[in-house]
Amino acid sequence: MADGNREALNKDLAGRIVDTARIRAGKTWAELAEAIDKPLVWTTAALLGKHPLTAEDASAIGKALDLDDDVVESLQLQPYRLADQELATDPTIYRFHEALGVYGPALKALIHEEFGDGIMSAINFKVDFDRREDPDGDRVVITLDGKFLDYRW
Amino acid sequence: MADGNREALNKDLAGRIVDTARIRAGKTWAELAEAIDKPLVWTTAALLGKHPLTAEDASAIGKALDLDDDVVESLQLQPYRLADQELATDPTIYRFHEALGVYGPALKALIHEEFGDGIMSAINFKVDFDRREDPDGDRVVITLDGKFLDYRW
Amino acid sequence: MADGNREALNKDLAGRIVDTARIRAGKTWAELAEAIDKPLVWTTAALLGKHPLTAEDASAIGKALDLDDDVVESLQLQPYRLADQELATDPTIYRFHEALGVYGPALKALIHEEFGDGIMSAINFKVDFDRREDPDGDRVVITLDGKFLDYRW
Amino acid sequence: MADGNREALNKDLAGRIVDTARIRAGKTWAELAEAIDKPLVWTTAALLGKHPLTAEDASAIGKALDLDDDVVESLQLQPYRLADQELATDPTIYRFHEALGVYGPALKALIHEEFGDGIMSAINFKVDFDRREDPDGDRVVITLDGKFLDYRW
Amino acid sequence: MADGNREALNKDLAGRIVDTARIRAGKTWAELAEAIDKPLVWTTAALLGKHPLTAEDASAIGKALDLDDDVVESLQLQPYRLADQELATDPTIYRFHEALGVYGPALKALIHEEFGDGIMSAINFKVDFDRREDPDGDRVVITLDGKFLDYRW
Amino acid sequence: MADGNREALNKDLAGRIVDTARIRAGKTWAELAEAIDKPLVWTTAALLGKHPLTAEDASAIGKALDLDDDVVESLQLQPYRLADQELATDPTIYRFHEALGVYGPALKALIHEEFGDGIMSAINFKVDFDRREDPDGDRVVITLDGKFLDYRW
Amino acid sequence: MADGNREALNKDLAGRIVDTARIRAGKTWAELAEAIDKPLVWTTAALLGKHPLTAEDASAIGKALDLDDDVVESLQLQPYRLADQELATDPTIYRFHEALGVYGPALKALIHEEFGDGIMSAINFKVDFDRREDPDGDRVVITLDGKFLDYRW
Amino acid sequence: MADGNREALNKDLAGRIVDTARIRAGKTWAELAEAIDKPLVWTTAALLGKHPLTAEDASAIGKALDLDDDVVESLQLQPYRLADQELATDPTIYRFHEALGVYGPALKALIHEEFGDGIMSAINFKVDFDRREDPDGDRVVITLDGKFLDYRW
Amino acid sequence: MADGNREALNKDLAGRIVDTARIRAGKTWAELAEAIDKPLVWTTAALLGKHPLTAEDASAIGKALDLDDDVVESLQLQPYRLADQELATDPTIYRFHEALGVYGPALKALIHEEFGDGIMSAINFKVDFDRREDPDGDRVVITLDGKFLDYRW
Amino acid sequence: MADGNREALNKDLAGRIVDTARIRAGKTWAELAEAIDKPLVWTTAALLGKHPLTAEDASAIGKALDLDDDVVESLQLQPYRLADQELATDPTIYRFHEALGVYGPALKALIHEEFGDGIMSAINFKVDFDRREDPDGDRVVITLDGKFLDYRW
Repeated sequence: MADGNREALNKDLAGRIVDTARIRAGKTWAELAEAIDKPLVWTTAALLGKHPLTAEDASAIGKALDLDDDVVESLQLQPYRLADQELATDPTIYRFHEALGVYGPALKALIHEEFGDGIMSAINFKVDFDRREDPDGDRVVITLDGKFLDYRW
Repeated sequence: MADGNREALNKDLAGRIVDTARIRAGKTWAELAEAIDKPLVWTTAALLGKHPLTAEDASAIGKALDLDDDVVESLQLQPYRLADQELATDPTIYRFHEALGVYGPALKALIHEEFGDGIMSAINFKVDFDRREDPDGDRVVITLDGKFLDYRW
Repeated sequence: MADGNREALNKDLAGRIVDTARIRAGKTWAELAEAIDKPLVWTTAALLGKHPLTAEDASAIGKALDLDDDVVESLQLQPYRLADQELATDPTIYRFHEALGVYGPALKALIHEEFGDGIMSAINFKVDFDRREDPDGDRVVITLDGKFLDYRW
Repeated sequence: MADGNREALNKDLAGRIVDTARIRAGKTWAELAEAIDKPLVWTTAALLGKHPLTAEDASAIGKALDLDDDVVESLQLQPYRLADQELATDPTIYRFHEALGVYGPALKALIHEEFGDGIMSAINFKVDFDRREDPDGDRVVITLDGKFLDYRW
Repeated sequence: MADGNREALNKDLAGRIVDTARIRAGKTWAELAEAIDKPLVWTTAALLGKHPLTAEDASAIGKALDLDDDVVESLQLQPYRLADQELATDPTIYRFHEALGVYGPALKALIHEEFGDGIMSAINFKVDFDRREDPDGDRVVITLDGKFLDYRW
Repeated sequence: MADGNREALNKDLAGRIVDTARIRAGKTWAELAEAIDKPLVWTTAALLGKHPLTAEDASAIGKALDLDDDVVESLQLQPYRLADQELATDPTIYRFHEALGVYGPALKALIHEEFGDGIMSAINFKVDFDRREDPDGDRVVITLDGKFLDYRW
Repeated sequence: MADGNREALNKDLAGRIVDTARIRAGKTWAELAEAIDKPLVWTTAALLGKHPLTAEDASAIGKALDLDDDVVESLQLQPYRLADQELATDPTIYRFHEALGVYGPALKALIHEEFGDGIMSAINFKVDFDRREDPDGDRVVITLDGKFLDYRW
Repeated sequence: MADGNREALNKDLAGRIVDTARIRAGKTWAELAEAIDKPLVWTTAALLGKHPLTAEDASAIGKALDLDDDVVESLQLQPYRLADQELATDPTIYRFHEALGVYGPALKALIHEEFGDGIMSAINFKVDFDRREDPDGDRVVITLDGKFLDYRW
Repeated sequence: MADGNREALNKDLAGRIVDTARIRAGKTWAELAEAIDKPLVWTTAALLGKHPLTAEDASAIGKALDLDDDVVESLQLQPYRLADQELATDPTIYRFHEALGVYGPALKALIHEEFGDGIMSAINFKVDFDRREDPDGDRVVITLDGKFLDYRW
Repeated sequence: MADGNREALNKDLAGRIVDTARIRAGKTWAELAEAIDKPLVWTTAALLGKHPLTAEDASAIGKALDLDDDVVESLQLQPYRLADQELATDPTIYRFHEALGVYGPALKALIHEEFGDGIMSAINFKVDFDRREDPDGDRVVITLDGKFLDYRW
């Protein structure tokens, strides 16, 4: 049978297909997150290829966006989460990296002062995204919330 | 006079001297922030060389830590805020960059959905650092709060 | 339906298609800018994939150049604005980067002297392009005009 | 004599010494430019090591800032004008490079449309720096003005 | 005959096809290792393209997963074992490289102290993979076991 | 007092001083590990600058090797654990990275199969070093033992 | 019409098609240069994609080599002249870069001594290629001839 | 004796010392070339550290510029001729590399057409430097003259 | 005719096609070298795309392996011999580069001591490959034999 | 005692000191190799810092060249054998790397054909250096002789 020589759809490509279908269907990321009852940032990242979905959630997204089966399959695959150096130059993403350049050493110093020698986990970790109204211009508010892991032998 | 041939103390070196003096004096970053009545993350970043201090604040820190005059002078200088690729490999700092690799495209997508085409400013921007107790292990909570800037011609 | 497995046309490719169609149609960038009543540099950048167009403007360009629907769709998408290191070696573009190598530190020093600690925004920012006649050879005159943003916590 | 084994003072170091002396003397870049009757951006770049000064100008700056003789000598030397990749990550300088990433291809296209195949010279070239008041926040205005050079065999 | 112009299937692609077929068939890596009676880590690496299989083993895998002939052929080819810098940024793989950054110099020092000047072979070398239950959370246990090779002229 | 202008001794330099003193004193790493009753690999890594020592342990090492006070101080400092790309080319260390190139994707696949989506922690992590006699040449046996961390929102 | 969705043929590809057609037709570069009455090095560079041809010249080449219309169109397009780092490792091309490594600083020093502060233009610039017979082995003689441009504000 | 622990003066440093002494003595490169009766470009390159001088020539230069003995010694040492990527960004030197980017593939094609498969030697190789008067601005004329070496097994 | 728009087959691809055909035909590299009466290493390198073959030799290989005409054509083309950084990480190839890291400076020193200032040519150069039996394990013996070229102006 | 704060002399520096002393003493590498009765290439590499010497050999070299004790100590230390990318651009060393670019894939293919899947060891490995007279110009002959290691689990 023909499947013996076909690799699964790449998750990056699946992510772009999802995004295209989402735009054509006039749906927001928030609506998709609601459809599978998952947090907003997690859902967006997962649909862009950074987390695997359960079969049930992938199927729900597939129905909502009228996706082909191999896209639905791809959404469930275990990702490679590669650091794309080129994406990091997009101005909207770059500002985060720049802020880490300015505040990274300070955050490291404060983690060590408050918690001891260790790290904030990026695995046991969640991210919230919010808008805060402000008369001087509304603000993007992003909260990183990760478990402290101490160097433990 | 001898000053005609001497450059000011490099701010990175000044930052390491401040850190050394702070440890020897048994002072926390929080105590230094309090001494100049500035936010914690800002103060830590500034003393590590990422922001200029006012003459008054620099002098207060100099007294608190018994610093030489050229360190106090250096703290007031305008910094180069260079992206140190090597520092980014420290595990405590790396986790932040890794998280941006995983969640960066999602944050970009959500900023555009919620605010339109633009960025979260890294200049009109502040960072909070917190500890949240959790029975499964306490958590590091970091809040990034920046003004939205739309692409405006 | 077949759309369930198709990603939108890449904006770089759309830009090259626009450029090809423009040349074949014998139209200048200025004529396209006029057709949508937008500034010249902005229009050229947007059509090359660096800014999203409104549906109305994309449609006007599509008619002017007889473009397919997926090109028109692509012009409206939110771009990734990636720093292409290789393009920066084209001699016409390289001269700008070289000039920044020579004058960048001076511009930084003057911004800080005149405005204080901060940056010239590249988001709230516009660019003008002009030709100035000169008996020793005409000159390219480019004006960068961006809002000053001070480091504000 | 001892000079047989001593290299001249490095121009980058000389630039940092000049900047330190300038700050300690409370002088602006504009005052130094006036002292040698040269344009502001040119003077700032030259004193930071990017252009050689005449003996007369170097000597005038030396007197104004009480510099040692080897600094005055260094200011007159022919520079290497190296592209410092790390400086390019300073946020104030980075915004210029980012803007070139966004508008560089458009500027290239417009130069070719208006002038033909060639470049804007970065040698026969000048830069102006201005502040424009604006109720929404003052603006940095930078004008690049270079001779067009056509590819000519 | 048409084969005169066709290159063999790339081993990386063959590896992705194997992985896709494995998932669709609901088989574990352990089951495939058992099918050819080879160690678990070796089999997984080989099927992902890092070691050549014998014709017999490739054929057994081909039957188990209903693979096309050119996939079966590709599994037997001699690999290029290239260091993929981008894969190294996947968080699951990155942790190993990070651990080498922290413990590499120590392991070098201990190899030299215990064995003399030389290396642990990565060719005469095997890897075991295990799960160890632990009330604080189960642990991944990986054993590297390589022949010591002394610098011998 | 003079300390107001002196940074602490760099931990890499302290590590080289410890190593030199150890060789001159004819002591093994194992003897130093025993002196502070810590595991062998941990102790070696820590003395080379990768982990902070307690004041008591640093002092014990200082006495054992007749170290100056600033070396003893440096051993207690919080490290930057930077990935030194150049050290990774040393043949003894390179073999580990090469092995990860060959077996990394397999280890990732097996971690996901056995544990689900997540990583082996490099923080809650230990390393053992052993020699196993073998008639074909003794073998280096290194065990990596880290807690599994699942992606948990 | 179908052209609404097709980009022009890439100039690098067009160059490889020209080269293939040239070899199949048994024509030398010199014969092609003669056919359009242009210098040898210029013609070769232009046909390989580094300079735009006039419509007339492109058409003449198209007839001489029986090229398709989109190749002829591509030859007339404005090029990106990108620095291909990989091509620079070809031994025949590498020797030129190596020679610049050895003699570049000397050429810079001599340009400044003879002409003052400035550059040899690479735009107002031509290259000749010659063979000189020599009993010790014939020699390649390449002449670079560019206008001096002084740094002029 | 003290020499048992001193390395020879680095040739790059020696080159900078020679250049400094040359400027202070008001001598041109041409005068130094004449002093040792060697070609101009060769002498300049050699004095900047790219070729070893004979003892006699080094001594003559040492007398002409009143150099210390260790500079004279350094001039005679065998050089490492390293490709300095940073120097290659100096505008005066960069133009040569840019020209190779544009004309390198053409020169390769012409060498192969005229001489067969091989290279122009960069070892059996000389460089001439000239000024040619031109009413449109004088020109820098540089001639590269190297023996053709064919790939010969 | 359709050839007006087709580039010749890439030599790397041709090399992979040759290798595939060779394996399928059960032929060794040595048999192919014998078929065209050329040295073993030269033939292998040439068939992998690193040297051009004569029409006669290409045709003989084409018959021996039943290759299509465009493969036979490709084997005769002049190659680009690019340094593939990624191939250099294959363990079998890496060991050679590592050995150069260890012995390169020594080989340079010995070439200069024995021959004077110059290089071993990599163009007038041949490589032999041999197996030497050894009771401790057979050995790979590779001989590099290149003409000495002295720096000659 | 003062040694408590001093690291051992770096082996690269020690290598440069040895080389300087060797030149001043008018000794060849061959004479030094003879003095310690070791092979020529091995001795040269070891004295340049790539292998540790025994105390006896280091002492013999120290006497032959009148070296200070810390140089003699440094010669005995275990080296880091780092790949110096910059040294690889020296023309004499570069030719070897270039030859590997051209012949590396062929050598890999031949090793696999003759020996099976594995590598030529760079540890159980030796290098000979020879001069072969040739009427067309003497030749450098370098023999690499390493044990074959097969991938063995």
